[in-house]
Amino acid sequence: MSSKVCEAIREEVKCFSPYTAGKSIDEVKEAYGLNSIIKLASNENPLGTSPRVQDVIKLYASSTFRYAQVGTPNLVDAIAHYFHIPDDTIVSGNGSDEVIDMLIRVKATPGKNNIVAFKPCFSMYQVLSRLNGVEFRQAALNDDFTFDWDGLLKLVDDQTSIVFITTPDNPSGYAPKVEEILALHAKLPKSCLLVVDEAYMDFAEDLDRYSMLPRFTQYDNVCVLRTFSKCFGLAGLRLGFGAMNPQLAEYLRRIRAPFNVNILAEQAGIAVLQDTPFIEETLRVTREGRAYLTKELEALDFNVYPSLANFIMVEAPKDGSYLTEELLKRGLIIRPLVKGYNLPKHLRITIGTDHENQVLISALKEILNAE
Amino acid sequence: MSSKVCEAIREEVKCFSPYTAGKSIDEVKEAYGLNSIIKLASNENPLGTSPRVQDVIKLYASSTFRYAQVGTPNLVDAIAHYFHIPDDTIVSGNGSDEVIDMLIRVKATPGKNNIVAFKPCFSMYQVLSRLNGVEFRQAALNDDFTFDWDGLLKLVDDQTSIVFITTPDNPSGYAPKVEEILALHAKLPKSCLLVVDEAYMDFAEDLDRYSMLPRFTQYDNVCVLRTFSKCFGLAGLRLGFGAMNPQLAEYLRRIRAPFNVNILAEQAGIAVLQDTPFIEETLRVTREGRAYLTKELEALDFNVYPSLANFIMVEAPKDGSYLTEELLKRGLIIRPLVKGYNLPKHLRITIGTDHENQVLISALKEILNAE
Repeated sequence: MSSKVCEAIREEVKCFSPYTAGKSIDEVKEAYGLNSIIKLASNENPLGTSPRVQDVIKLYASSTFRYAQVGTPNLVDAIAHYFHIPDDTIVSGNGSDEVIDMLIRVKATPGKNNIVAFKPCFSMYQVLSRLNGVEFRQAALNDDFTFDWDGLLKLVDDQTSIVFITTPDNPSGYAPKVEEILALHAKLPKSCLLVVDEAYMDFAEDLDRYSMLPRFTQYDNVCVLRTFSKCFGLAGLRLGFGAMNPQLAEYLRRIRAPFNVNILAEQAGIAVLQDTPFIEETLRVTREGRAYLTKELEALDFNVYPSLANFIMVEAPKDGSYLTEELLKRGLIIRPLVKGYNLPKHLRITIGTDHENQVLISALKEILNAE
Repeated sequence: MSSKVCEAIREEVKCFSPYTAGKSIDEVKEAYGLNSIIKLASNENPLGTSPRVQDVIKLYASSTFRYAQVGTPNLVDAIAHYFHIPDDTIVSGNGSDEVIDMLIRVKATPGKNNIVAFKPCFSMYQVLSRLNGVEFRQAALNDDFTFDWDGLLKLVDDQTSIVFITTPDNPSGYAPKVEEILALHAKLPKSCLLVVDEAYMDFAEDLDRYSMLPRFTQYDNVCVLRTFSKCFGLAGLRLGFGAMNPQLAEYLRRIRAPFNVNILAEQAGIAVLQDTPFIEETLRVTREGRAYLTKELEALDFNVYPSLANFIMVEAPKDGSYLTEELLKRGLIIRPLVKGYNLPKHLRITIGTDHENQVLISALKEILNAE
């Protein structure tokens, strides 16, 4: 029986579905009676946590009773220095999820503006648009998961406050060239903000060809999002940032909860940017693993989509749910794309360590040959 | 010059002022050329971080590259067990700030509902109401900082979706008895949620007389907020929770960002609830320090307001800004209440360790006698 207090909630919220997470390592261990698990499902760093970050976390363990400094200025300095961008363009968040929320809250008026993205796209664009009472419009990707710019532009009107694109895209790993993004930008109204979510851009090999981060300062209405969850290995600590026009950044700071970034994320973020060996090894392992998995999976009749990210999307030679389940029995967690994406034969595989990638290929050979 | 993208932001947001934080320890050290600082300004734990929490943080330092389990179920179990409340009533957040935001987002329809609280009150109630496009109404406290229930009720109508009260209140430390809260509740519409923010309730000596946490399950429309930032000493890690009707809790979970609570806050929260010696010593130091400071400050002609929290509010015998500045020169940071509260003679002092409290009293004696 529904209580009066729940009958009187916002209508929009009644239609929300809960987020369905993948199985955790402990859940898989228990369900399948396994001792060790290889998780290639959430695009986390294959090397684990940077040794330098681990040291800093231990050093600051005794400081966690203090509130962090509002706006985490030392972290902002470190980001500015590492990425060669101005301090006043940077807004840090409890993951880039929170920066997305802040951008929508600043830019979009409930019941008036709309937000445009591709379909499929990162689910938080839609969730947070609806939560902010803003219409969310989606243009289908091309069949090969490249971007249908004309389809996207058709949905944009003078009430469009934000256009989101993700590059490299998830789950495909596809990244358009910068010229294409600039061509889109040239056709958008000047009042509309183009948000380029580069969560996986660190793994691309030719940043100058793909990334907007080195050039967003030339445009008033381009914001680039980055995360520390992937290449920098801090998924569990929650840290991301947006880089944008300083005036817009100032509005985000005004509405931000004062202590949004936790004190260990702040210190870990500063530390990992100084850990050049860790970052270089992450990139080497990811790029070599991507090439290895592509070659081996193609040999097993998978259709592999070209990826610039730390994962690859494949179309399997048979039902994806069957393969996912057989891999789980062998202690390997990957991400099926049937739920959320409605792609029953497609799978997303995070690039692991050399050893993890080899175990995956051996397991797939066993499963496919056993039939 | 304003850019088009900033001209076209939400009108509400243009009127937001930035959060003005108190000076940090490092800033005070530098500005006054000091080596050591006593900070009695942010109601943090006087004992620092629990030793058990420090151990757990070190243990989990290497796991921070993983995403936490969605909804942090192990932490929710630990909270349920410690506070003797059902699991399904609990929603954890990145600080209770985030739970406040989720409650407003679920309950209040932009442009339609209103939210009611006292004035002054915790600034986030107002900031987040406005950010969610919801009218915010405030009833003045009585002159002695007790609660004018009739004044509050006069602002409530059938479009009021939430009433917020804070007990013990900030900055006064005042807490009404449970019967008064229940009398308020009885007069509210059943569709309206009463949120009782008990951030400082751990420090009250007779919980049964003041806290709604042992009895919220009897009411569909009462939510209790608690934080790990104060008594549990995890301010920098960001952790709070709301306890409410399970159906309402389920709506909050649906709109929540999946990885809102970071992995170290999760593990630290579990650990501190098991650290009974740390919690008991925190309560002893706070309660004894509260009595000591009250006695000594009254002897120095301060008007001390009775407090059930880990801070006390005082009306100083002379201008508060002068005292604050003189204390800063001596390395003591307290919170003046002129900004934000417009109370030029009032100060808020966090209860410190026995030693810190003694240093404060000595410094005040020196300042007041030097004239």
